[in-house]
Amino acid sequence: MSVSELEGYHGEILRRLKTANAKVGDIVKITTMTGEVFEGALFPRSEYGDPNHIVLKLKNGYNVGIHFQRTEKIEVVGGGQKPHFTRPSPPPKQPGLPRVAIISTGGTIASRVDYRTGAVQPALTAADLASVVPELANIAEVEADILFSELSENVTPSQWKTLAEDISRRITEGVSGVVVSQGTDTMHYTAAALSFALQHLPVPVLLVGAQRSSDRPSSDAASNLTGAVAMAANADLGVVGVTMHQDLSDRYIVAHRGTRVRKCHTSRRDAFKSINSNPLARYDLHTRQIEYFESPPRRRSDHNFSLKPEFDHHAYLLKFYPGFDPQIIDAVIKAGARGLVLEGTGLGHVSKYCYDSIRNAVKNDVPVFMTSQTIWGRVDLNVYVTGRDLLNLGVVPLEDMIPETALVKLMWVLGQTRSIDKVHGLMLQPIAGEITERTTITEAA
Amino acid sequence: MSVSELEGYHGEILRRLKTANAKVGDIVKITTMTGEVFEGALFPRSEYGDPNHIVLKLKNGYNVGIHFQRTEKIEVVGGGQKPHFTRPSPPPKQPGLPRVAIISTGGTIASRVDYRTGAVQPALTAADLASVVPELANIAEVEADILFSELSENVTPSQWKTLAEDISRRITEGVSGVVVSQGTDTMHYTAAALSFALQHLPVPVLLVGAQRSSDRPSSDAASNLTGAVAMAANADLGVVGVTMHQDLSDRYIVAHRGTRVRKCHTSRRDAFKSINSNPLARYDLHTRQIEYFESPPRRRSDHNFSLKPEFDHHAYLLKFYPGFDPQIIDAVIKAGARGLVLEGTGLGHVSKYCYDSIRNAVKNDVPVFMTSQTIWGRVDLNVYVTGRDLLNLGVVPLEDMIPETALVKLMWVLGQTRSIDKVHGLMLQPIAGEITERTTITEAA
Repeated sequence: MSVSELEGYHGEILRRLKTANAKVGDIVKITTMTGEVFEGALFPRSEYGDPNHIVLKLKNGYNVGIHFQRTEKIEVVGGGQKPHFTRPSPPPKQPGLPRVAIISTGGTIASRVDYRTGAVQPALTAADLASVVPELANIAEVEADILFSELSENVTPSQWKTLAEDISRRITEGVSGVVVSQGTDTMHYTAAALSFALQHLPVPVLLVGAQRSSDRPSSDAASNLTGAVAMAANADLGVVGVTMHQDLSDRYIVAHRGTRVRKCHTSRRDAFKSINSNPLARYDLHTRQIEYFESPPRRRSDHNFSLKPEFDHHAYLLKFYPGFDPQIIDAVIKAGARGLVLEGTGLGHVSKYCYDSIRNAVKNDVPVFMTSQTIWGRVDLNVYVTGRDLLNLGVVPLEDMIPETALVKLMWVLGQTRSIDKVHGLMLQPIAGEITERTTITEAA
Repeated sequence: MSVSELEGYHGEILRRLKTANAKVGDIVKITTMTGEVFEGALFPRSEYGDPNHIVLKLKNGYNVGIHFQRTEKIEVVGGGQKPHFTRPSPPPKQPGLPRVAIISTGGTIASRVDYRTGAVQPALTAADLASVVPELANIAEVEADILFSELSENVTPSQWKTLAEDISRRITEGVSGVVVSQGTDTMHYTAAALSFALQHLPVPVLLVGAQRSSDRPSSDAASNLTGAVAMAANADLGVVGVTMHQDLSDRYIVAHRGTRVRKCHTSRRDAFKSINSNPLARYDLHTRQIEYFESPPRRRSDHNFSLKPEFDHHAYLLKFYPGFDPQIIDAVIKAGARGLVLEGTGLGHVSKYCYDSIRNAVKNDVPVFMTSQTIWGRVDLNVYVTGRDLLNLGVVPLEDMIPETALVKLMWVLGQTRSIDKVHGLMLQPIAGEITERTTITEAA
């Protein structure tokens, strides 16, 4: 057996795989010290992977890394097929198509590369993309680049700034639309951030990700990317959106408004939902038509386009619950909070045991805002005595803004001004469709 | 004008209402200093109400209290009807019906009383109930009592204990079922708490509330209560549930499992949803039939029924987000946390910037558990490198348990044992349907 048949494995781990006569691509069964059994195709390891893990691709499509010290027994149970690493050549560019910039920041969607490294260390080139989704070449002239490679849970507000600046540069260069690939975990936070940072957008800026990697039969990577690029190229939208599966049918890729979207399932392809609003538009993968919901913001001439990429991370989001310890509020004030979003219950309540800490926050010039952990609906502090108490303490209710967007908006607002009055004013001023004016509560609502 | 026509108002406020020639029940228009205009029926004030507010019942059904110092102008714009406070006599008891205990703890559902006091200071007697919902007398022999009167956002874990003890006493006395009326804000937390505290339940224990008070045309108070009492009396359930509207049709009252339910809208009647599970059963208000979903826990002989009402409030729930300050974790450890539930992103992730604080928590014998802020779905720390890192740090993923239930369970588990190993074991052991064994991830899931 040649070493290349166990590509990337070293030392003790290589010795044990050789002893078991295992080759990359073989179906291998590993029994651990604690009696767990894993069966799947043996992966090659890249230099990025943790050298102490054997990586298997399980039948359910997920990759698993098993520390070799946990390994009791390794058996080859079937000769697999060596995964093919050769890429088809990208199809030739077609002149005259709209230019679309794809900016890669990481995540499952770039998982063809993930497949080769055996870990989510995403990277994406135009050639990768074209070979994963050859039909993109018929839709747009794609310019793909890697801006950074980060699991989305590690993306920070300062990276939102970097991303907003990069997108702004691409727009100024004249692209017809921008697609940002990112991990889905915090994609809705990034989408909200870009919605505030990129104002009067002349073209669509669409975030896209995948819930299942592209080497799984049920992957949504190619279809999501196709929908995103098609809408970035052609949709009459001047707004930030999140483009993912509408449902499990594999027919519609829907664009949700960046400030109104939330990941509502850990693993489903249709995990992203528009909250308290309709989506912007959807792309029909069969007919290739774009359909609009209500009246989304349209493309416009770009002379008002402005970049406001500053975020102040001294904003805190705290979720209230029975038994909530008000000391947490005191602690974040002490830690230097410049603003606080509460995720209250129901119409926007916290217990009376929090009043002293809230009063103290307001006294320390920390503005306090109220949202609801119900997620759907609108807060209203005028219905119950608790709400009125909170208003009297100076808490500002954020209408139908979802908590995640409220937090991101507060970071952005604090990046624009340090005046408390201006912070209050900006938080309640609709900037990117994140808040709708209160209307009479109807029974159907 | 007699003073009784302005019942409950005093001092300056009484003087101004007299000047405006306003009587209780009149349609009054109030213009505030800041130009806001409120129009609605003038309420009488009770001794419980804040004496500085004029209370109007708005056309949309909500009550609003306006501080008299904010009042610029008071006009009578229509003679209203004096709300009638006379109660119909409760219908005579019918012998032979199942006995159902109704325990009132507060909230909107007792809003006939709210209507009289002009503020949510709930109180409920059997006579009140029978007059609000006369048909209850045909369903069960109702024994109603007030245990406490608390807005649900103020209910504490120690009140869960009081409530569990009271329910246990009623069950031992031989009732066929128990209904607990509570405010809806934290009803799902209470339901989870009772699910763990009342084990091997012989009869149904159903929480009920209302999203709209009983004096509004669209009120759900009577129908929710009817459904709850009917199911408490007759449903073959031995489990804690939350009984509220299934949808907006006013036909079905659905019982959600206490550990699987969540308030998902600030104001809709069908705000409560079963998460990651089917509801238990539903009551058809038209046909009066009960229909079961799958196989809920059934009534059983009560010799195994046990009360375990201790909760330790030193459990904390923290929601992660981009820019999350790990100092919050340090602060709760310092504040005396004995356990921590994280609401991570996606499959159950937090950023690498939190690793040190998590390591420190675990080192301080504070068990750390992972749930997901997506709400729906199952956490899985084996898919991505972040998850594997968190496992290595000692974080325990809680499968498909929702964050709110996980927090309540942790409070309950810490009330049973201080052994870290036992805490870990109990948290993963299914006790009240709160967690389901991991199955192969199917594409439809």
